[in-house]
Amino acid sequence: MIKIALVQINPIVGDLSENAKKITESIKTAKKKGTNFIVFPELALTGYPPEDLLLKDYFIKENIKFLNKIKKETTGITAVLGFVDRNKSKTYNSCAIVQDKKIIDIYHKLYLPNHGVFDEKRYFKPGKTLPIYELGNKKFTVTICEDIWTKKHQHRLKSENLDYIINISASPFSIRKLKQRKKILSSVAKFAKSFVFYCNLVGGQDEIVFDGRSLIYSPKGKLLKQAKKFSTDILYFNPDKYRQKSVKIKSNKIENIYSALSLGIKDYMHKNNFQKAILGLSGGIDSAVTLAIVAKSIGSNKVNALIMPSCYSSQKSLTDAVKICKNLGIKYYKIEIDNIFNNFNKNLKPHFKNLATDNTEENLQARIRGNLLMAFSNKFGHLVVTTGNKSEISCGYCTLYGDMAGGFGILKDVYKTSVYQLARFINKKNSKNIIPKSIITKAPSAELRPNQKDTDNLPRYSLLDKILHLYIENNLNLQEIIQKGFDQKIVKKIIKMVDSSEYKRRQSPIGIKISERAFGKDRRMPITNNFTG
Amino acid sequence: MIKIALVQINPIVGDLSENAKKITESIKTAKKKGTNFIVFPELALTGYPPEDLLLKDYFIKENIKFLNKIKKETTGITAVLGFVDRNKSKTYNSCAIVQDKKIIDIYHKLYLPNHGVFDEKRYFKPGKTLPIYELGNKKFTVTICEDIWTKKHQHRLKSENLDYIINISASPFSIRKLKQRKKILSSVAKFAKSFVFYCNLVGGQDEIVFDGRSLIYSPKGKLLKQAKKFSTDILYFNPDKYRQKSVKIKSNKIENIYSALSLGIKDYMHKNNFQKAILGLSGGIDSAVTLAIVAKSIGSNKVNALIMPSCYSSQKSLTDAVKICKNLGIKYYKIEIDNIFNNFNKNLKPHFKNLATDNTEENLQARIRGNLLMAFSNKFGHLVVTTGNKSEISCGYCTLYGDMAGGFGILKDVYKTSVYQLARFINKKNSKNIIPKSIITKAPSAELRPNQKDTDNLPRYSLLDKILHLYIENNLNLQEIIQKGFDQKIVKKIIKMVDSSEYKRRQSPIGIKISERAFGKDRRMPITNNFTG
Repeated sequence: MIKIALVQINPIVGDLSENAKKITESIKTAKKKGTNFIVFPELALTGYPPEDLLLKDYFIKENIKFLNKIKKETTGITAVLGFVDRNKSKTYNSCAIVQDKKIIDIYHKLYLPNHGVFDEKRYFKPGKTLPIYELGNKKFTVTICEDIWTKKHQHRLKSENLDYIINISASPFSIRKLKQRKKILSSVAKFAKSFVFYCNLVGGQDEIVFDGRSLIYSPKGKLLKQAKKFSTDILYFNPDKYRQKSVKIKSNKIENIYSALSLGIKDYMHKNNFQKAILGLSGGIDSAVTLAIVAKSIGSNKVNALIMPSCYSSQKSLTDAVKICKNLGIKYYKIEIDNIFNNFNKNLKPHFKNLATDNTEENLQARIRGNLLMAFSNKFGHLVVTTGNKSEISCGYCTLYGDMAGGFGILKDVYKTSVYQLARFINKKNSKNIIPKSIITKAPSAELRPNQKDTDNLPRYSLLDKILHLYIENNLNLQEIIQKGFDQKIVKKIIKMVDSSEYKRRQSPIGIKISERAFGKDRRMPITNNFTG
Repeated sequence: MIKIALVQINPIVGDLSENAKKITESIKTAKKKGTNFIVFPELALTGYPPEDLLLKDYFIKENIKFLNKIKKETTGITAVLGFVDRNKSKTYNSCAIVQDKKIIDIYHKLYLPNHGVFDEKRYFKPGKTLPIYELGNKKFTVTICEDIWTKKHQHRLKSENLDYIINISASPFSIRKLKQRKKILSSVAKFAKSFVFYCNLVGGQDEIVFDGRSLIYSPKGKLLKQAKKFSTDILYFNPDKYRQKSVKIKSNKIENIYSALSLGIKDYMHKNNFQKAILGLSGGIDSAVTLAIVAKSIGSNKVNALIMPSCYSSQKSLTDAVKICKNLGIKYYKIEIDNIFNNFNKNLKPHFKNLATDNTEENLQARIRGNLLMAFSNKFGHLVVTTGNKSEISCGYCTLYGDMAGGFGILKDVYKTSVYQLARFINKKNSKNIIPKSIITKAPSAELRPNQKDTDNLPRYSLLDKILHLYIENNLNLQEIIQKGFDQKIVKKIIKMVDSSEYKRRQSPIGIKISERAFGKDRRMPITNNFTG
């Protein structure tokens, strides 16, 4: 009789010894619960994605060493464990079947994703065989992530009359992913008339966040169990003792985004040994939401705010900035930048002579703020968290080395309209207006010149975000977007802004992917590019 | 009788109409010379690499439209032209064989590189067939870049008893590439007993530079002709009228690097519509060499220098900086930064209280300079060229948003020891000491604190560069490097510096690849990474 445990661990890329420790500890825990079959996610031993670490021979050798250490802990249990295999100088995304201290087989992933954020064909060769294993009188096989998403392979699985299909994954969170995942897994279970055990990684790794949420489906395609989301967990299950009752789990889009952002920043700080974070707080919605997310995920005592008003900052912004710090219990510093700004201008004046004030002076203010934040970062070792949202990063409505200065962007993949939704969600979740209502209701402004409004340069965000989504996520061109009922002049302007700010994005800090197409590894546009689509 | 022309053009990625124009103009020119067979490089129509433009349906449709326009210009001639084909929603890196206004066949690249800077499997499906064409009584085939590098395919080519093998390529320059290329092409020609016509792209595209240098080999493997390097060119050849005499072309490593850097910056500026460049000139070797390269490649009147001394700058540096401007005829501005620096410190003091001066203050100086440069860039529309070399970028011995601020890095992939070689090469080439001798002989210093020397933080460059090369280009680990006779403590320190400054490199401007492994698309390391190799 099989008693299965799906262990969604949170490894650190490259930290083989720590990851191996997490794995062996989970084996011990699961054993105590009477489990005889334990499943770990894709590349659980190395973390995902190891990227060019996979080009280092020594890295692969070390990961095999640790696999051999782990196998000694498998007395009385079968473990399915993701690692990197090497055979005759070929590298494979692999899964070891370990039983009673022996590696009884190694499966090589058949279908290698090389789209979106994935680069598996850069490193791995595809496997060739689909092994069928027996345990008692049950037949099972293992699949790795993309394998189970592949039509051809689904037919193969069906033809084998399996009892259990195991899928180990490193499937990153994005807004629509969960629905797709559930649809595929349920349909494969039903189609192949087999249980499906889906074990997913959890945790933040640079720009991606794995949401865990391992799943178990019945041979009729019903969802039987779901592991925690955005958290480590072990899912126990006995297929001989289950009641045919499907569970329904509600999922809220904004709550999911909030959780992904929280785990993303928490893990980035933890895994890179940052004790504290700092950010520039303007009194606007972006920095307010960012601060709330960071404070709530790592603790108010671990994040500081730097308020850096200029003569263009409104009194209201200043009051709001202080208010949110008080609401969250945040320590803040205040430095007025006019003095430094004037000093820069005085030095530049002889060279700029009679030239009019323009975005040079606006950017300069943003860059002075960037410098001050970096000074705090250098002096205290704090991580500078950036606050820019996807709408402005798309349009280049942001200053390189200014508000773009920092190590990690919380809202980089969150459109402005969703930032507002997050603000409301945060206030509701905490049953009080952590983010002052006036921040949510006032017209957005960069406050870099007198009476500036975002709408001076950009269309209103409700319109802008729709067009950006069609252009960036859906890859539509000018004509196709216009056909959806948008104004040609506006669409043209937006596309031009997006295309011509590629150089800024290339130097922007990494940030958490939550959409189907985030800036970063997910969207690779040339800077030098004369195509006008 | 075949009269061939290999046309190495310099397309702009995405600029389909301009590229098509270059192609049709070349056809006209070649026809006038009596050519009846004209060959263009890989993806000549779209430019290489189009990256995620290839995910836009509209882009592919447009490129096919232009192919159909070009075909109308092929009366009396056969053209072999690289473009992107689409068939049943599959995309192919392709080559059209166009004759007398008709597309007579389309070849799909068989072997897709997905290593180094290449991501072809992200976009393309591999072709399935190797077509053999006849022209008069001659048999020929086409191959695209990687095809001819593949052992299996070389055997296939041999078995076909071909007269002519055509290879259209987009092969980026790197120091060792030319030798490898010549070796492969010569051996294939000899092995298959066929002429090999190799037509390579030329020009800079973001971080890569194509060096042109198209080649023709005899069926005995002898090099018969070579097109210009780092320049557009047309190579004419009549295989029925050649003398079996191989040419020998000398190639100098530093000269090649110099040419690659020159073309890289020239094309980046031209293709992105920059009229002028500006850079920060310290009086040190890096900015001196950078200035000389930029001035010599785009013209002294198109680059300005900004000299930004502080109290830590030596009088000698200042004199040297002015001297090189005079030598090159460069307009320079001068802004002393102490005033701004003191102002920053005054504002930070209440928050830093009794804390000691450290790298915070050093970075601040660099960042003030970065801000000033960006102010000039914003005000005048100049491109800020960065001056950091590969040794310091490897070790993180550079300031994010400081000396790293800018759009394009000339020396990003050039180790410090090669920077010195470039300096000597430049002086020799120009028969005068454009770069003052004292710049070459003095000990390198960032001049950010009193009496600072690079060797305070780093080993001497002759040692450092050797270790960096083994770690970065050769992917060796600590033990393997030590075994080559280097000191454990030093190697360990260097590896740690390289690994822990990944976050800086991720935000650095792009720069020209000249090595076998440049920072950028060529080396993709996770930031969050606990592996200690």
